[in-house]
Amino acid sequence: MTQAIHKKAISGVLSLEAYTPGMPIEELQRKLGVAEAVKLSSNENPLGMSPIARKAVADAIMGTDLARYPDGSGFRLKKKLAEMHKIAADCITLGNGSNDIIELLGRVYLGPGRKAMFSAHAFAVYSIIAQSQDAEMIVVPARPMTDAMPLGHDLNAFAAKLAPDVSLIFIANPNNPTGTWLEPGEIEAFLNKVPADVIVALDEAYYEYMDPKLSGNSRALLDKFPNLVVFRTFSKAYGLAGLRAGYALSSPEMADLLNRVRQPFNNNSLALLAAEVAIEDQAHVAKSVELNTREVARLSKELKALGLTVLPTQANFIAIGFGRDAKPVHQGLLERGVIVRPVASYEMPEFLRVSIGTERENDRFLDALKDILKA
Amino acid sequence: MTQAIHKKAISGVLSLEAYTPGMPIEELQRKLGVAEAVKLSSNENPLGMSPIARKAVADAIMGTDLARYPDGSGFRLKKKLAEMHKIAADCITLGNGSNDIIELLGRVYLGPGRKAMFSAHAFAVYSIIAQSQDAEMIVVPARPMTDAMPLGHDLNAFAAKLAPDVSLIFIANPNNPTGTWLEPGEIEAFLNKVPADVIVALDEAYYEYMDPKLSGNSRALLDKFPNLVVFRTFSKAYGLAGLRAGYALSSPEMADLLNRVRQPFNNNSLALLAAEVAIEDQAHVAKSVELNTREVARLSKELKALGLTVLPTQANFIAIGFGRDAKPVHQGLLERGVIVRPVASYEMPEFLRVSIGTERENDRFLDALKDILKA
Repeated sequence: MTQAIHKKAISGVLSLEAYTPGMPIEELQRKLGVAEAVKLSSNENPLGMSPIARKAVADAIMGTDLARYPDGSGFRLKKKLAEMHKIAADCITLGNGSNDIIELLGRVYLGPGRKAMFSAHAFAVYSIIAQSQDAEMIVVPARPMTDAMPLGHDLNAFAAKLAPDVSLIFIANPNNPTGTWLEPGEIEAFLNKVPADVIVALDEAYYEYMDPKLSGNSRALLDKFPNLVVFRTFSKAYGLAGLRAGYALSSPEMADLLNRVRQPFNNNSLALLAAEVAIEDQAHVAKSVELNTREVARLSKELKALGLTVLPTQANFIAIGFGRDAKPVHQGLLERGVIVRPVASYEMPEFLRVSIGTERENDRFLDALKDILKA
Repeated sequence: MTQAIHKKAISGVLSLEAYTPGMPIEELQRKLGVAEAVKLSSNENPLGMSPIARKAVADAIMGTDLARYPDGSGFRLKKKLAEMHKIAADCITLGNGSNDIIELLGRVYLGPGRKAMFSAHAFAVYSIIAQSQDAEMIVVPARPMTDAMPLGHDLNAFAAKLAPDVSLIFIANPNNPTGTWLEPGEIEAFLNKVPADVIVALDEAYYEYMDPKLSGNSRALLDKFPNLVVFRTFSKAYGLAGLRAGYALSSPEMADLLNRVRQPFNNNSLALLAAEVAIEDQAHVAKSVELNTREVARLSKELKALGLTVLPTQANFIAIGFGRDAKPVHQGLLERGVIVRPVASYEMPEFLRVSIGTERENDRFLDALKDILKA
């Protein structure tokens, strides 16, 4: 009988493996009985959410009627985002995190007979949405380890693989889980090669962490390329991962399509409020980015001194290569109460991805790692 | 240029009209300058959320790190639901509201060459997901107005329309926006006629409001029919619409498929927590249901006395027929600060759907209505 319920399911779903999230601290504690674990596995903001946003949410809980549906149009948050990006509100699509935006794009542009294109070693959700939509995938080989940007996106290789059935191209800048990035001119040069009916989805989830000299100006590109959609999240530098909020900027025509498949109440009321207030607290973002930049430099130096491979990063994590299967190191770290992310599913079995924590958390990681490498 | 971005979009999306939510109070106040509006348009709980859940959420805001991703497995909430329904945790799929569950079902079971089946005058999101998945739809005519259950689901007509390409059948009990319901035995009799590879999705969003003598035992049916999935929400009797939480119960095999297309962090941390605590506060649910039952009876009687058609309801709203285009009545109510739901898009242009509010809110509605009908 249980086989019967598979018979009419979408074939892509039947062969799909669900996304594996970073292990929550609670789960490690349940499983290994480790107390005071440090979680460096989900690229979260170690300073937490903006205290101003936190207070606004706390006040709202007692004052707002949470039995009412959220404002499905996200009127206030869109207004704030429109001001921030100097863009019309009808160019904005709100997502339940930027994962939601990726799904909306897939549901509008992917289906049988269409192809999604993205880089090897790119965010897992691109392939999950393509497969679940029964679309095909073109996985573009990444730059070689000998390149100045090892495992980074190779946009020339993307361009070489363009074909009439490609409908949606994902570019992550910086890319997760490698941390690699594209030079400001590269994306525009690529857009000039892409036909106007092929959608280029630029994932800037880690945008805020980038050196401003490297982060480019995707907002300006939107005015030139109606087939471009740029998306960002409040889950990283803004520290709202637990609340779920992200957004896309695009032409109003594309936003209209995305909003048609968006669940009418995809963002919860407190997420909308927190994002709205968090935008105002740029000091908190700046402080978070400053800590990250400083700690990336320190950790990179220390890790290199240990003889490890460190991919260049402009994000809030570092991909570390061990030159051998990284599983035992991952396990050793878990046993020492440090949760990091294995990336074997990204075809990087010799790497671990480590989120940048507070100085104390990073020290915990370094101490545990040194202890493991010594053995 | 803007036409180009439509060229590779899914055809169902291009012809899709997005769901229109009930107007938020804020929007009415912006548009008509009405102060102190009463919102009876979205079937929310007028008593609000459980005060115990509210306090738990308020405490969590200051104590929990909302910069951390939610527990994507929903471990604690599933544990509570599993106890409540005497079912294994791996039979549960958590949704960002039950709208999310409807989408997950559509994404697993609907696509080109497949058909969704549902009743006329049934919840709009069934057709939205079918169309956006490029599936076809069989809209089964409802029972006639002369029936004892006017505009209710006609499961015999459903059975007569079964065909090999039907993959997913939605049944709403009670149905929104009619309020009509099915006798306990009807659903089981229908399930006995449905092939094992056709999924029957039983939408029980309004389950808690039903007279226990009428609400049947869908939990017991799950053990008999592996092709059955039952879903409920925390947005109605539990009063958590602003937080977004719903869930499905099914065989573990179906839950596995649904969880593959579920966004890994579809529920935000506070939604998970609030739902978990709200389950414990059954006194609040009972109080909400008791108010609803009493007010449904009072309103029905008053409305009938005004010569209006009142559909039988087991939900927290009443569908009222005016015997003529209901638009002017809707507009008249808006001008008097009372927001109700027009249902012309449900092919019920002569009806309005009115959510049950507090006694005071219902009086506001009745007074405004009498004022309009007098003119």
